[in-house]
Order: sequence, then C-alpha cells, then structure tokens
Amino acid sequence: MVVDSEPRMLKHQVVRKNLDALLDGLAPGDPFPSERDLAEEHDVSRETLRQAIRELLVAGRIERRGRATVVAAPKVVLPLAIGSYTEAARDKGLSASRILVGWSVDEANETLAELLHIDAGDAVVQLERVFTTDDTRVGLETTRIPAYRIPGLVETFDYRVSLYAELRSRGIIFGRVVDSIETVLPDAREAALLSVDSRTPMFLLNRVSYDRTGVPIEHRRSLYRGDRMTFTAEMDA
Amino acid sequence: MVVDSEPRMLKHQVVRKNLDALLDGLAPGDPFPSERDLAEEHDVSRETLRQAIRELLVAGRIERRGRATVVAAPKVVLPLAIGSYTEAARDKGLSASRILVGWSVDEANETLAELLHIDAGDAVVQLERVFTTDDTRVGLETTRIPAYRIPGLVETFDYRVSLYAELRSRGIIFGRVVDSIETVLPDAREAALLSVDSRTPMFLLNRVSYDRTGVPIEHRRSLYRGDRMTFTAEMDA
Repeated sequence: MVVDSEPRMLKHQVVRKNLDALLDGLAPGDPFPSERDLAEEHDVSRETLRQAIRELLVAGRIERRGRATVVAAPKVVLPLAIGSYTEAARDKGLSASRILVGWSVDEANETLAELLHIDAGDAVVQLERVFTTDDTRVGLETTRIPAYRIPGLVETFDYRVSLYAELRSRGIIFGRVVDSIETVLPDAREAALLSVDSRTPMFLLNRVSYDRTGVPIEHRRSLYRGDRMTFTAEMDA
Repeated sequence: MVVDSEPRMLKHQVVRKNLDALLDGLAPGDPFPSERDLAEEHDVSRETLRQAIRELLVAGRIERRGRATVVAAPKVVLPLAIGSYTEAARDKGLSASRILVGWSVDEANETLAELLHIDAGDAVVQLERVFTTDDTRVGLETTRIPAYRIPGLVETFDYRVSLYAELRSRGIIFGRVVDSIETVLPDAREAALLSVDSRTPMFLLNRVSYDRTGVPIEHRRSLYRGDRMTFTAEMDA
C-alpha cells in the first residue's frame, strides 16, 4: 500500500504546495481557477486535483459561491473561553450577531438532569441560535438552562443580545467550564441552518458551565463550521 | 430552500435516530447492516442512507473493515493537557504506543525560528511519530525542538519511550502550552500513515510549549483522527 501510493503522494503534495503558493498571492474574494484548468496546468488527474481542492475547502482557504470558487477570508480565531461567543468575537474586533432559531421550555430527561444537577422532569429553558460573523453563519448553539435560574426570562429577554450579559445582570457568575470537543458532520437540518454542504466537517463542543459554588448554570451544544473557525487554548502547568 | 429541504430533513433525522438506537443495542466489532438492507428497511433513498452512514463514520460510531462495516469501539477521550499523548492515554488506562516515522536535524525557517525564539538557520531536531491506542493508529505528531536544548539526544534517545520523560530527565520543565485547534482533511501521505480514508476529518493541533521561564521548548503539529478522538478542556474564570 505504501509502495502503491508513493507516486500519488508526491504528485499530490506538489499540487498542494503549488496551490498554497497560488493562494498566498491572492486576496479574499478573488476567483480561484477551475478544476479543469488546474488539472491541465499541473498535468495531474482530475481526482488528484479534486482531493487537493477538497482539502482547501475544508481548511477554509477557498469557498464555493454558487458555481464559482473564490479565495476565502481568513478563519475566525477564538479562544475556548468561558462565556459568550459574541463577546469573544467582538473582543477580537469582529462583527458578531445571532439569529434566533427557536426557544422552548422542556422537561429535562435523565441525561440532561444529571449534567445540570436537577431532577428529571424539571423545567429547562432551551434556546437555539445561529451565530454570525461578518454576515457568515459560523455556528449553531443550543443552550439549556434550568428554569429556576432565570424566572421570567422567556417573557423579557431580547434574544439578539448576549445571554451571558443577561445572566450576569441577574448575578449569575461563571466559575468554571468543562468542554468536550469532537469533529462531526452536520445533519441536513444543521447544514441548512449553517448554509453549508453536508460534507463540511464541524467542531462539536459540548460544554457544562458552573457557577463559583460549583452548581451548573447551563449545558451548551455548539456546532461550529470547521472551515471558518480556529479555536485556541492556553494551559498552565 | 428551507421549504424544499423540510421533508428530507425529517426523514433523515428519523433514520439517524433509528440507527443510533440500533447502535446502542450492539457491541464494538458487531457487523453493521448493509446500506442496501437499511435503505429497504427504512424505505428511504440510498442517498439519504449514505449521508447518515457518513455521519456515523465521521462520528466514530461505525468503521470500515475491508468491505465490511462494523460497530466501532468508543472514542478515546483525552484532555488537552500539557505533555505527552502516551502518558495521558496511559493515565486513562489505555494501551498507547508510538511508531517512529522519521527524525532529522534541520535548519529553522523564519516562521519556526520566531515560534521557538531562535534564529533562522539554527539547528532543530524534528521527530515524526505515529501514536497508537489498542493497535489503532490515532495520531501523527511532528515535534520540533531547538537542538541546543537536547545535546546528544539523537544518538541516545529510544524513540519508543516518552519524549517528555526524556526532557524531564534533562531538567526541562513544562510551564505553559498554547494550542490552536482546527479541523482538516489529511493529505495522501498522512492518510496512508494513519490508515484512514482521505475524507476522514482530522483534528489539527498546533502547539508551542514553554518552560517555566517562558522560553519555548517545542513546536508540535499533531494530526488526530476525528473519528477516534474526543478532547476535553477545563477552564476556570
């Protein structure tokens, strides 16, 4: 297998290097050459070229706009931080907003109840929002908060503003968060809400946030476009 | 677009739910039904079924074994921790090992020199290894360490043991790490080294580790199989 794939590996790597160099000389929004033109220019098979283009799409260096392919804007780089996506994005000087998909008050099932240290059947407020940066849909977040924490929220809350600012104004202070991070493909509904192809790898972040006394505040399931986001994390010994 | 995709979304979600329930009743290594049988049973198109199967493959719930598809073992869950992959895996009770791909002594280019606080042209030891868990190739790691840090290492080091243990024995203590986390597709060489399909989403972790005086110890580029790994992170306010 190694012997078989050796020549293709080399050719593939040369193509990737050439395309990376080509991209370094282009600006976001510039048209990217067609697969056919690139295959001819590099004298490689369409399949070799297609794999390189797939890599560049997933890496967020190029993007589809209808039938055209253009150079993508740089990814959004955000810390895996406590608190709000939009606040973190704005701290970075990015325009960030939210689109409300829906909210509901549900009864916690056993799994959620255990995560949130409540009883199964207790009321939980669920809020689903799409996050945008510069008018691009980058993430889909489902937040679940025990209803006892936020009496009256669903009547008064403006879903366009920061949920975290609202929680802070109620004296709820974040002390610690525990994240798990996976890569997944979006299902059809998620792909539609994020305006992506269903083959675009996503970050799936599952988070439980705790207050300073160790009581859970929220469970958060966030799906972020892998082609648009880079996360950073710092750890001290 | 939302109207168009509504019926397909629902059908797709029902199929996913049924497949998830089916998987909950099976054990790792059990055969997974064929696409054709599943499509007939659920009365959906092959394409709807194919997308659900793609999701399950990427999520690491099923895996290909030659032409067969079987239920996968649970993912490896590891903290985004300072130090060694193998030590973290063994702390979790997993069998973990390494395969040496290659090592070399190179001159740092400007980018690497800046990351490692050395001069361009300074010697850097580069070590490329595949990490395994229970005989599955889960990660490919390229570590670059300024040669001045580790005189004589290339003559004496046993690449099967922990590089971090070796560094510790030389009095090099890790103080802080800075990670960036992305999702990418492997190139052909990386896919071959990790025994994966080139469409399998990967975690790409780029890390700089610093000692307790803030001087960089290493740059590490790690590619981990997204279908085999879950990372966790904890943060305090």
